[in-house]
Amino acid sequence: MQLPRPLRGGVRKVLGLLCCVALVYFMVQALASSGDAEKSGARMVASELKAVTGPDKKVYEYGREMPLIFIGGVPRSGTTLMRAMLDAHPDVRCGQETRVIPRLLQLRFHWLKSEKESMRLEQAGITNDVLNAAIAAFTLEIIAKHGEPAPRLCNKDPLLIKMGSYVIDLFPNAKFIFMVRDGRATAHSIITRKVTITGFDLTSYRQCLKKWNSAVEAMNTQCRDMGAGKCLRVPYEQLVLHPKEWMGKVLKFLDIPWNESVLHHEDFINNGISLSKVERSSDQVIKPVNLEALTKWVGNIPDDVVRDMADIAPMLSVLGYDPYANPPNYGKPDAQVALKTKDIQKNKGVWDKKAKEMFSLGWDNGGDTALDKDPSDNANLT
Amino acid sequence: MQLPRPLRGGVRKVLGLLCCVALVYFMVQALASSGDAEKSGARMVASELKAVTGPDKKVYEYGREMPLIFIGGVPRSGTTLMRAMLDAHPDVRCGQETRVIPRLLQLRFHWLKSEKESMRLEQAGITNDVLNAAIAAFTLEIIAKHGEPAPRLCNKDPLLIKMGSYVIDLFPNAKFIFMVRDGRATAHSIITRKVTITGFDLTSYRQCLKKWNSAVEAMNTQCRDMGAGKCLRVPYEQLVLHPKEWMGKVLKFLDIPWNESVLHHEDFINNGISLSKVERSSDQVIKPVNLEALTKWVGNIPDDVVRDMADIAPMLSVLGYDPYANPPNYGKPDAQVALKTKDIQKNKGVWDKKAKEMFSLGWDNGGDTALDKDPSDNANLT
Repeated sequence: MQLPRPLRGGVRKVLGLLCCVALVYFMVQALASSGDAEKSGARMVASELKAVTGPDKKVYEYGREMPLIFIGGVPRSGTTLMRAMLDAHPDVRCGQETRVIPRLLQLRFHWLKSEKESMRLEQAGITNDVLNAAIAAFTLEIIAKHGEPAPRLCNKDPLLIKMGSYVIDLFPNAKFIFMVRDGRATAHSIITRKVTITGFDLTSYRQCLKKWNSAVEAMNTQCRDMGAGKCLRVPYEQLVLHPKEWMGKVLKFLDIPWNESVLHHEDFINNGISLSKVERSSDQVIKPVNLEALTKWVGNIPDDVVRDMADIAPMLSVLGYDPYANPPNYGKPDAQVALKTKDIQKNKGVWDKKAKEMFSLGWDNGGDTALDKDPSDNANLT
Repeated sequence: MQLPRPLRGGVRKVLGLLCCVALVYFMVQALASSGDAEKSGARMVASELKAVTGPDKKVYEYGREMPLIFIGGVPRSGTTLMRAMLDAHPDVRCGQETRVIPRLLQLRFHWLKSEKESMRLEQAGITNDVLNAAIAAFTLEIIAKHGEPAPRLCNKDPLLIKMGSYVIDLFPNAKFIFMVRDGRATAHSIITRKVTITGFDLTSYRQCLKKWNSAVEAMNTQCRDMGAGKCLRVPYEQLVLHPKEWMGKVLKFLDIPWNESVLHHEDFINNGISLSKVERSSDQVIKPVNLEALTKWVGNIPDDVVRDMADIAPMLSVLGYDPYANPPNYGKPDAQVALKTKDIQKNKGVWDKKAKEMFSLGWDNGGDTALDKDPSDNANLT
């Protein structure tokens, strides 16, 4: 079919115009995409991102600029509870204590403590920047790969916070959650659960409280030095009395949207929350948030230690715990927590059985960290 | 100006056609470049390449698949000479001993030696694969960044070869150059240069030769286990007697094109070859390849040790050194080497002065590794 002349000329005009528009469009596109390619190449060099693919086939990038979350504190201060509650959030993965990250950081501190060794490393081209790049790369591989990928990755090696400022040097967008707890409860827990930490004498409340004091003081200094934007102090007692309020604060501090899951972490055990059979707190975090551990220590500390408490552990007052109150008034629990605590006490047998079933394998196998010296607890706790 | 009708129609036709051709061209381009972007994203995930940019603005990628070169051997066996000769090649960069890489690998061996600790790491999600990824990432950062980028990167931490098979697990395309030397010369050098290596008693030739024997035996086993495609044994004596022949073998083994520069490494000191002021062999490799160090030991070993040599150090015979010849006949040097050796002896004063000028700073500053225990020499040399 042939169109009448005028019309055919019009079609030609329109077609020509369309082609030219398309030409300009694709030229711009091509230029823009070649720009992207250059940019992404440059970015890989600059920020050195790596990536893992999740079971959802999504690609999760990781690198030193990512907003890592670190949970720290003296052992037996609620760090496992905090990481379990965060692990229950669909956007966050913490996982078990890695053990190897604090050891590598410690090794670096030993190297740099010696002036001679520092000079030798400098002479070998191992500058601070090179060493930090290597330590950060090691740390990232461990954190990214020892558990499932997630938009927000988190680490709970409790003593790492003693090197908090250095961790921020490695990961400038990282943030710390600093768990603190009444030192009397911490000491009682360390002693009765026989948690071996280098420097702690498990036969002496006085000595353990002194060690707690110096450890928590050093961590508190690091937390203060990092600043309020980088380190949030969370009292264990307030977390268990008012979990909603405190997890609200924590998530806001971490720029993570609120999610109710964090209030019933017990529903996610082995389904979003991986537990180690040989970590001493695993058998406790399978229960809902409860008040059982608040005042167990009362009546168990020798009279002379109770009398000298303010001198032995001056950090108690600094952190807001009355050294002369046995126990101090930590506050009134939320109704939900009181209810769950009663329920746990009523079903004590069921919970004990559940814990035994879950963890007997590891403990029978001699994996109990209480029975031997634990090198991961060596990080300068004196 | 207005064209006559028929012509204007023709221009329109040509323009329209051109536009359409261009349209198709840019569509194909755009599609192809978006395909590239996806591919490069996938590759980053799969091979986890990182990159550094050289002073030449070239981008050098690095990752676990790269053909790294490792130089190993008992200290004082020519490992520094080998790395200097390779460093002189325009495609290769070795650099100084990093010290930190063998220490991290050692730390891993300590962790895995303990069954309990292995189980704890397994429980923490730190599987072998995860730990290897982290150790490889640390190692790559150190190797790639402690010196200039180069197409072929190389590491000379001499004791790393004791963990050679594991290094090949980390870097499947890596290769080892294993430097061996007459143990009598090595022991004499360790003792007279006061090189502290844990386990070596610098007052006893007998003890040092025994230690040399067990160390070189372990390394030789590793080299054999890696196989001829992965590990090349290079006798120090043959390297200095026939540098052209042996560097030819070395470069062929490493798939690196021949380059004359490797035969006059002395021209590249501080200009392609970085030296540490505190490594004990730095003052020797500033000289051309020469025969000075071949037979210095003769006449310095106690008679009873000379008598029992075959029993003390059975590895001498295994490696082809006659234990009863003092010295054995290592062979006749290439003319060029004999000439350079004479020249060095004639200008001894000049060379001594040059060495003093280059390294006095480090040695005056107490960086002499002979004067204190050197933890980098601790890698299981027993």
